[in-house]
Amino acid sequence: MIRKYRYGNPFPTGAVACEIAAEKKEQTAFRLNAEGEFTLALAPEDCVYGLGEAVRGINKRGWHYESCNEDDPIITEKRIALYGAHNFIVVAGKKGVFGAFFDCADRVLFDIGYTDPDELRVKAVADFDLYIVEGKSAVEVVREFRKLIGDSYIPPKWAFGFGQSRWGYRCEADIREVADGYAESDMPLDMIYLDIDYMDHYKDFTVNKERYPDLKALAADMKKRGIRLIPIIDAGVKVEKGYDIYEEGVEKGYFCKDAEGEPYVVGVWPGDSVFPDVLNPEARKWFGSKYRILLDEGIEGFWNDMNEPSIFYSKKRLAGVLEKVASARGRNMPLEEYHGILGAIGTLANNRADYAEFFHDTPNGTVSHLSVHNLFGCYMTRAAAEYFEEYQPDKRYLLFSRSSHIGMHRYGGIWTGDNASWWTHLLLNLKMLPSLNMCGFLYVGADIGGFGDNTSEDLLLRWTALGIFTPLMRNHSTLDTRMQECFRFKDKKTFRNLLGIRYALVPWLYSEFVKSATRGDMMFRPLAFDFPNDRRARTVEDQLMVGEGLMIAPVYEQNAAGRYVYLPEEMKMIRMRSATDYEETMLSAGDHYLEIPLTETVFFLRKGHALPLAEPAKCVDALDETKLRWIVSGNAAEYEMYVGNGESKSELKTALRKLKVPQEKK
Amino acid sequence: MIRKYRYGNPFPTGAVACEIAAEKKEQTAFRLNAEGEFTLALAPEDCVYGLGEAVRGINKRGWHYESCNEDDPIITEKRIALYGAHNFIVVAGKKGVFGAFFDCADRVLFDIGYTDPDELRVKAVADFDLYIVEGKSAVEVVREFRKLIGDSYIPPKWAFGFGQSRWGYRCEADIREVADGYAESDMPLDMIYLDIDYMDHYKDFTVNKERYPDLKALAADMKKRGIRLIPIIDAGVKVEKGYDIYEEGVEKGYFCKDAEGEPYVVGVWPGDSVFPDVLNPEARKWFGSKYRILLDEGIEGFWNDMNEPSIFYSKKRLAGVLEKVASARGRNMPLEEYHGILGAIGTLANNRADYAEFFHDTPNGTVSHLSVHNLFGCYMTRAAAEYFEEYQPDKRYLLFSRSSHIGMHRYGGIWTGDNASWWTHLLLNLKMLPSLNMCGFLYVGADIGGFGDNTSEDLLLRWTALGIFTPLMRNHSTLDTRMQECFRFKDKKTFRNLLGIRYALVPWLYSEFVKSATRGDMMFRPLAFDFPNDRRARTVEDQLMVGEGLMIAPVYEQNAAGRYVYLPEEMKMIRMRSATDYEETMLSAGDHYLEIPLTETVFFLRKGHALPLAEPAKCVDALDETKLRWIVSGNAAEYEMYVGNGESKSELKTALRKLKVPQEKK
Repeated sequence: MIRKYRYGNPFPTGAVACEIAAEKKEQTAFRLNAEGEFTLALAPEDCVYGLGEAVRGINKRGWHYESCNEDDPIITEKRIALYGAHNFIVVAGKKGVFGAFFDCADRVLFDIGYTDPDELRVKAVADFDLYIVEGKSAVEVVREFRKLIGDSYIPPKWAFGFGQSRWGYRCEADIREVADGYAESDMPLDMIYLDIDYMDHYKDFTVNKERYPDLKALAADMKKRGIRLIPIIDAGVKVEKGYDIYEEGVEKGYFCKDAEGEPYVVGVWPGDSVFPDVLNPEARKWFGSKYRILLDEGIEGFWNDMNEPSIFYSKKRLAGVLEKVASARGRNMPLEEYHGILGAIGTLANNRADYAEFFHDTPNGTVSHLSVHNLFGCYMTRAAAEYFEEYQPDKRYLLFSRSSHIGMHRYGGIWTGDNASWWTHLLLNLKMLPSLNMCGFLYVGADIGGFGDNTSEDLLLRWTALGIFTPLMRNHSTLDTRMQECFRFKDKKTFRNLLGIRYALVPWLYSEFVKSATRGDMMFRPLAFDFPNDRRARTVEDQLMVGEGLMIAPVYEQNAAGRYVYLPEEMKMIRMRSATDYEETMLSAGDHYLEIPLTETVFFLRKGHALPLAEPAKCVDALDETKLRWIVSGNAAEYEMYVGNGESKSELKTALRKLKVPQEKK
Repeated sequence: MIRKYRYGNPFPTGAVACEIAAEKKEQTAFRLNAEGEFTLALAPEDCVYGLGEAVRGINKRGWHYESCNEDDPIITEKRIALYGAHNFIVVAGKKGVFGAFFDCADRVLFDIGYTDPDELRVKAVADFDLYIVEGKSAVEVVREFRKLIGDSYIPPKWAFGFGQSRWGYRCEADIREVADGYAESDMPLDMIYLDIDYMDHYKDFTVNKERYPDLKALAADMKKRGIRLIPIIDAGVKVEKGYDIYEEGVEKGYFCKDAEGEPYVVGVWPGDSVFPDVLNPEARKWFGSKYRILLDEGIEGFWNDMNEPSIFYSKKRLAGVLEKVASARGRNMPLEEYHGILGAIGTLANNRADYAEFFHDTPNGTVSHLSVHNLFGCYMTRAAAEYFEEYQPDKRYLLFSRSSHIGMHRYGGIWTGDNASWWTHLLLNLKMLPSLNMCGFLYVGADIGGFGDNTSEDLLLRWTALGIFTPLMRNHSTLDTRMQECFRFKDKKTFRNLLGIRYALVPWLYSEFVKSATRGDMMFRPLAFDFPNDRRARTVEDQLMVGEGLMIAPVYEQNAAGRYVYLPEEMKMIRMRSATDYEETMLSAGDHYLEIPLTETVFFLRKGHALPLAEPAKCVDALDETKLRWIVSGNAAEYEMYVGNGESKSELKTALRKLKVPQEKK
């Protein structure tokens, strides 16, 4: 049951897939206070879930958040905004459960017991639609909400393999070194990602011919080895005379413009750049069609980046700041002035005042970027997805994005942006999974091992042990950090075993994913969603329910020999050294301290469930899903599996099998 | 048993209090590798403790560290250096236990299983003495080491009270508001700290007469209310004609000089500034004597800050950077140049190249700051302590510092620098306590609630519940963050109760502190130090043994309803709602999940120990130590208590009492 309330005349975000009529009379649990905030008293036992990509806990209480898509890679506890705008929350507690979606193109501020520990306060800074979602349980509320926002994107099956990335692969030889490194270490690999260096001077839809003399041949060769190349596409288009995409876009008026109608110039990786106006349907169609250039090279997947959009500086602001700094030369500056100058340098990047300086031509008129900033990444990804749909309606392409808004879940997945090689980010990876799922984002994952800073072998091992359960499984790192490919570390055997477990799980992961996507379910759930009457389950922030009946509890602390695990009920513990070397032990409900060495992966299976395991293979395409081993917990009669190579959309209609499950081994 | 090995001709750091002869023949567990690193193979069960103020765990394995005193308030997992240089480690494991102290004025690099998980590598970048410390246990090794480095600083007893600080108290009225706020909320308070705004234009040993018209009267008035004012002293002395301390120092040649013999000018809070050459004994004596100016105002304690020393810019470098930035005006810059310019701005602060540009006149000749950088804070604090000793030999002053080096522990305490309002920093606070104790620093604490960023009420409550056990207990926050005084929050009752528990514990805390200081013991110990044969105890990173027989296990996660606790043996659990409202429950050895609401403090007492509790009072001086209640665990016959007001050094000789302990309540 969903009711819609309209406040003002909101800009249509495209988040909602089916129109429903707005109620005539306002009747929600919220009260409006003098500051225009929607407030709700919180009882001590109430939990607030949601907000998709955000810092802090599964239960969001105790902090404030703001949906304001932001490119800032220092993700500490001080942050209130990350790369996505996901304005959906579920309040569960004393008075039952309900969901609230603040559908607003502009910022929405959530104060969830920060100012007053016992009060929730929400404020949208522009007109919006409020959807109140009711249901008997959190799971039902999410299912209702997901009906409202439409079906989630389903990638090709090979995208459930493991991918390796790094900002720093300079040329074809580097790519081959990575492919060879994995092959020689007998570790599977399905994707190698191309970061910005594959382009000619960071120009979208170009290839640097010195570094990659024949991308098509390389892609074909790699595909023969079971590996797809996945290039990055950045939001900013280089300003360069003679660069066809720039010139075409200028000619057609497809770039965002300033108040004088001139393309608005900012600095990003290519230097001076302009943004395609993806909120203009014509411009969006035009930009999306450019992906074809790389499809023709044999590319089958993309990651859209820098699409908050990230701005290093605007040309205009930069000139002012440089003048200011120059004026300080040769003078004995008081400290206040010195800090003023440093402060000015700090205002160059992602300055909201700049957002007000450029505009989009939308079907709803010309709007300033400021008011629709959070939609940009969503519509850039939509540009690609709509083109793919037009070009090859039945083919499934891999597509995911850094910036996002609810609605984009129909077009692609997301990775959770530029994290770091911090143990706290391993745990944050886990915590974001259910909240992303709530908002429709199912094809999700974090940069395993951490993007920024230097990883350590134990961190990468532990993080990979979590990553084997995330649909998007990518190891990614940045320039000038420790090389992070699994084969470069000492304990190759354990990395090989971990990746082997991932591939053994792919038939199950893929099936659970497709079922979640088609049924409006969350693939990752807080324990409290499956055990709503268990008080303790509500407080568990480091375990998750996954798919049907699985529970994960990864180790996320350095030098830990194991960890505590809470079992809401008796479950089967599976302790894996490899996909073929494991023990099954029934564990009683309650608290357990489990030793989990770096060489082992431990997870749990609820009674009445079965887990199929394939024989590990070097890539997803090579998996034989007819030869399955089963881990069975209690009485499980059948398992619903999605079979097939997962390359087409139509396949899904006939790919669901009910497999008989063998008896539990005692 | 300590053996000393000399490598080259090291600069004397002053860390060691008693000279011992160097061995003639090298014979240590380390092997020297081709890179000049001291290496040691680590077995999986080996733990490496130490390094004092550092990031990461109690067990330092899995990361690399560098002693390079650094003012950088963004303390994430990427960091390898903080504010102190504490080059002492203890290796405990398969082959027994030993300590190693790399006594070096310059940087020492510790790679503790980062490059190779199974290897420890240490490298000093300059000549040094290596002390190898042997003993039967980690506790014994530390005791031996502490004999080598000399007795730890003991503050006055009132310094065990609670203190409130903020960068942002602008004037006398603000100070009075804080004092009144605590008094009106019936919360105790012993200290209010004065941050840089009390000074006239940030000039050391001056008072801003507009903001503080009569500091002496204010200090006297506050003292009547049981509150001491504790001003900050910064390392940098303002360059200003007519400012007596600057002019005197220039005349006498007491400031650090450049290669031409001119005072070396840097930018810090006062703008252009110079550093007192605290490594020159005459200059040190001169600078120390200036503290008298504030003693004469009735001040009895100080915190030394910015003494890494922190440098915002050097005059010379700033000029170059400004030129560089100015040259970019009006040009269409390629992105590389743009980043070069931003990068140049980033090289202004704390640039090691600047350290090589100025010099100290030491008894061992003129040395560049680069080679003795880590000693500055230590010798600045020594300046004050030596003056206090000369001025009032028997009086105990409060003195602590941000930057430090082993050796400074004899002169003052430390706070762990500019942390943030992050839950991870609450846990880091706990983890640093034992490693600081190992290095002789006993009067220690972190900024409770977090210095940078905005706190939340629950974070401040949980952090205060840890802080009641740390000798230095200070709530401190910075400009433009949420006001953080306890009385400003909603649940005043719990803050009052927590502070009440602190004051009830002061007789015990003070006694345990003095015993630790005089006996070379650690007041805070990893569980493995007390239970060396307990494998599980070695992995516990979030509990500590405190004093004789106490164990703490604070809650450090947001929205946690409780936590897991590991008990190496049967212990008594004390669950306190206030200093007078508590339960005692015997808990069996092993793992427990304990519910711990925000309103409760839980800790544990080993059998055979007793804990005296005083009646809470509004300040330490008002505590009545003759009226004690006892919590007794098992058979405890007596408790050794240090009595007295703790204002003089001589008092300690006669202040130890053996108190009879009542029978355990059953």
